[in-house]
Order: sequence, then C-alpha cells, then structure tokens
Amino acid sequence: MITVQMILDRLIEPVGQLEKTVDTLKSGRLDAEVRKVAVVFMTTYAAIKQAVELGVDLIITHEPTYYNHMDEGEWLSGNPVYEKKRALIEESGIAIFRLHDYVHSYKPDGILVGMLKQLEWESYASSENMRLLTLPSDEVHTVRTLVAHLKSKLGIESMLVAGNPDLPVKRMGLMPGASGGRSHIKFLGSQDIDLLIVGETSEWETNEYVRDAADMGLAKALIVTGHQKSEEAGMQTVVEMLRETFPEVQVAFMECPLAVQRI
Amino acid sequence: MITVQMILDRLIEPVGQLEKTVDTLKSGRLDAEVRKVAVVFMTTYAAIKQAVELGVDLIITHEPTYYNHMDEGEWLSGNPVYEKKRALIEESGIAIFRLHDYVHSYKPDGILVGMLKQLEWESYASSENMRLLTLPSDEVHTVRTLVAHLKSKLGIESMLVAGNPDLPVKRMGLMPGASGGRSHIKFLGSQDIDLLIVGETSEWETNEYVRDAADMGLAKALIVTGHQKSEEAGMQTVVEMLRETFPEVQVAFMECPLAVQRI
Repeated sequence: MITVQMILDRLIEPVGQLEKTVDTLKSGRLDAEVRKVAVVFMTTYAAIKQAVELGVDLIITHEPTYYNHMDEGEWLSGNPVYEKKRALIEESGIAIFRLHDYVHSYKPDGILVGMLKQLEWESYASSENMRLLTLPSDEVHTVRTLVAHLKSKLGIESMLVAGNPDLPVKRMGLMPGASGGRSHIKFLGSQDIDLLIVGETSEWETNEYVRDAADMGLAKALIVTGHQKSEEAGMQTVVEMLRETFPEVQVAFMECPLAVQRI
Repeated sequence: MITVQMILDRLIEPVGQLEKTVDTLKSGRLDAEVRKVAVVFMTTYAAIKQAVELGVDLIITHEPTYYNHMDEGEWLSGNPVYEKKRALIEESGIAIFRLHDYVHSYKPDGILVGMLKQLEWESYASSENMRLLTLPSDEVHTVRTLVAHLKSKLGIESMLVAGNPDLPVKRMGLMPGASGGRSHIKFLGSQDIDLLIVGETSEWETNEYVRDAADMGLAKALIVTGHQKSEEAGMQTVVEMLRETFPEVQVAFMECPLAVQRI
C-alpha cells in the first residue's frame, strides 16, 4: 500500500527535510492510502472539487490554498470564501501537500527544468547556472520573436514587455515565478544578458529598473509572462518523478484556467 | 524665498511628522530655494532628466527612486543603472522628496480623493469610508461597463478581471495602488460589495480569492487596473494643495508613460 507519507518522502528526499518551509501537509492524513494523485499549480476551489469527484486521494500543489504564502488561516476565520473552501477540503478528507520550496531546491530546480523542457530550451541553458540561456549563434532573435515563442509554447495570449521589443537577444535569463525585485535586479546587474523573462513582478521594482536601463540606452529588456504560465508546466517534473517511483499509483497533471482575463 | 523645507512642512502638516516613513528627502538640500516643482508618480530616469532640463528645483514623487520601497541603495552599489541614475541626481543637485505615506494618511486619503475626482465618482463614496462606493440606483452597471469607464477616464488600454464580466454591480470598493492581499481580501470579506477595483495584486492572493468566490457562485468580481494608472491622477491633489499655498511657485504635474507595454 502506498501512503501519503511515502509520496512525501519521495518528494522531500532530493533535498532532505527543510527546517523552515511552507511545504506542509495542508489537509488529510499521512497514513492514508494513495491510489490517485493530482498535481496542480494552484489548489483552487474548482480544482479541489474536480479532484474529489475524480476520486483523487492526494493533491500536490505548487502554490498556497488560502491566498497567502504561509497558508495562515486565522485572519480568514469567518470569511465565507475561506470557510466554504475549508469545509469542502475537510468533508472530503482529501490530502493536500504543498510542494514549493522542495521542488525549487532540487538540483537543478525542478520547475526550471520542466519549463526549459516545455520551451525546448534545455540545450541553451548554461551548465553552471541553468537560468542563464545563450541562444544559438546562427539564429536571429529579438524580444518580439521570443514573445511569440513563449505564447505558442505556454498558451499565453499576451504578455508585458519593458524596453524595446525589437532588441536583438543573444543571452537571456529565465526566472519563472515571482522571485522578487532584488533577485531580478541583481541578476540583471551581474549577468551579461539582453533580456530577462520572469513570471510576475511588483510594478515599481523590476519593471522600473528595466525601463530606466532602456531609457539610458542600455540593451536591456524584460518579459513578464504572468506567474501561473511561467511555472505551471514545470510541475510536470513532479508528475514524471512520481510515475517512475510509484508505477502502481495513477498520477495526473490537472491544468487550470487563469484566475483573470484581460478586457 | 520658498525653500524645500517650507514645501515639505506643508506636505507633512495635515498628518504631523511620522516616526517611521519612507517619505524622506532622497536628494538635495532642505534650505535650497524652490521656484519650480514637478509632481510625478515615479521618479524615472527620464522624468528626472526632463525635470533637470526644465529647471525644476524639487520633484515630489509618489513611488521610490531606486526600485525598492525603502529606497535602499547598498545592495545596488556598483549596479550600472543605479550608479548612472544616482550620478544624474547628484550632479544636478535636484531635490527629490517621496510623498507616499503622508498623502495616504491625509483625512481623507489624498490619492483616493484625487482618483474619485478623476473618475467623477466623488458623490458615490460613503462618508464613513470613502473606499466604499454605491452606484446610483437608477443606473445599470456591470463589471464590463465599469471597465469601459476606467479605460476612458484613466487612459488604460486593457485591464485584468476575475469573476464574471457581466456581473451587475451596485456596490464596490476602490483601493488604488498595491495595498496587499490581506487588505483586499479583508475588505471583500467584510463589506457587502460586488466588485473590488485595485491597482496591483500578487497573483496568488487577491486574484485567487475572487476566482474561488466566483466559482462558489458568489457575486464577486475584481478589476486590476495596473498600479500606476490607479494612483497617478491622485497626485493632482498635491499639485492643487501646493499651488494654493505657494502661488509664487510654479507647480506642474509631469505624466509618465507606462514602464511596460502589452504584446
């Protein structure tokens, strides 16, 4: 019998138990049997409902369940959305494990590897630092052609660009998710890259840095793809890992629409 | 002679000196004479250059100069964009004062008042809580009609919507800027509103809360306008205040293009 604990052990094993981490069991029991696993980017209400209907025993989610990084619930006590979501989870008995810090701590970063695969950019990544990509010297790329590539490979309708969209790109950085302005700006300041591709920014940080750089005449540009699409395909790494270790368990990736639409 | 100190005193006076604040003099001297003031949303490199060319003595900016809320510079030391911006500021001798915490602490919030004026929504605001708006009972509004109004009044090309765009709206919240997921969600959870309009969110917080609420069948929607356009017009409050107090000083609002474009 495969249990929640056995799956968690497998997910944690490449890193070892972290002392401080948001990756905890949000619901369910460690000794519960697991026949079906759903891997998701975000445990939305709709995704949990769908998982329950499909008979999923364990959801592995990259992002939080309760609208804050630490999944703190006290401040939400009595909030109707929070209470209804919590009731669905508790009544179903489904297990939810967040896999954020561990998968990013795999060597190399599991999300980054999954994204490079999805983008067919694996061979461009530097072996010392896989976030650093060098495009083939016989190919001509600009920010605009890379936007088109990201759209087609990740299914994104439009994205945000700072700097000149027609800037030629030879070397670039890929930082999925929202790793923060300091991390983006330090990378831009220390690496010889033309373009940084990120998931999400705070507008007054990375966006303004790249705007200023471009206004100074520096060959720098930024693409902001949106957080979900910048990491979602990366969770495929987890699907493959679990299928390999536990062939008797059904493991499926559950895609999810974006929370927002552009009008 | 009007000095930087006299202008700062006027800006601080409605609140009194705050002990902890990001609103500090970022450059220049308190005893310098001021004949020309530029009010901006963000002290971009281009805006500072333009101000210097126009002979501006003091820039009043709502947002930081150095890509982080505290305007900390140590971590940026040696960064070419930071050093070039700092050199422009120091060589010009221009004074830069950040006006963020004070203007938001005016009673009522100076940015909010300016935005309500720009949107022609002043009469809809509750007198107890000006962020709470009730639309006229003889008018029919949906999220979509309000998006159209925001676009035309604020010059926004497109914005993000969570929930049903055709949801009828009677009562709504207006929270310019990026006040954070907890503040947005607490407002949504405690007020009887159909729609919340905000400047900027973290995607995994407010957006996901409203997505879940809508998927639960609750009549809730969210509009995310973008940070700059949600607050920029609010700085007009400061322009008017200074013109009234210092008629001998030239005070102008300097608009700024967005840092990013959508492709």
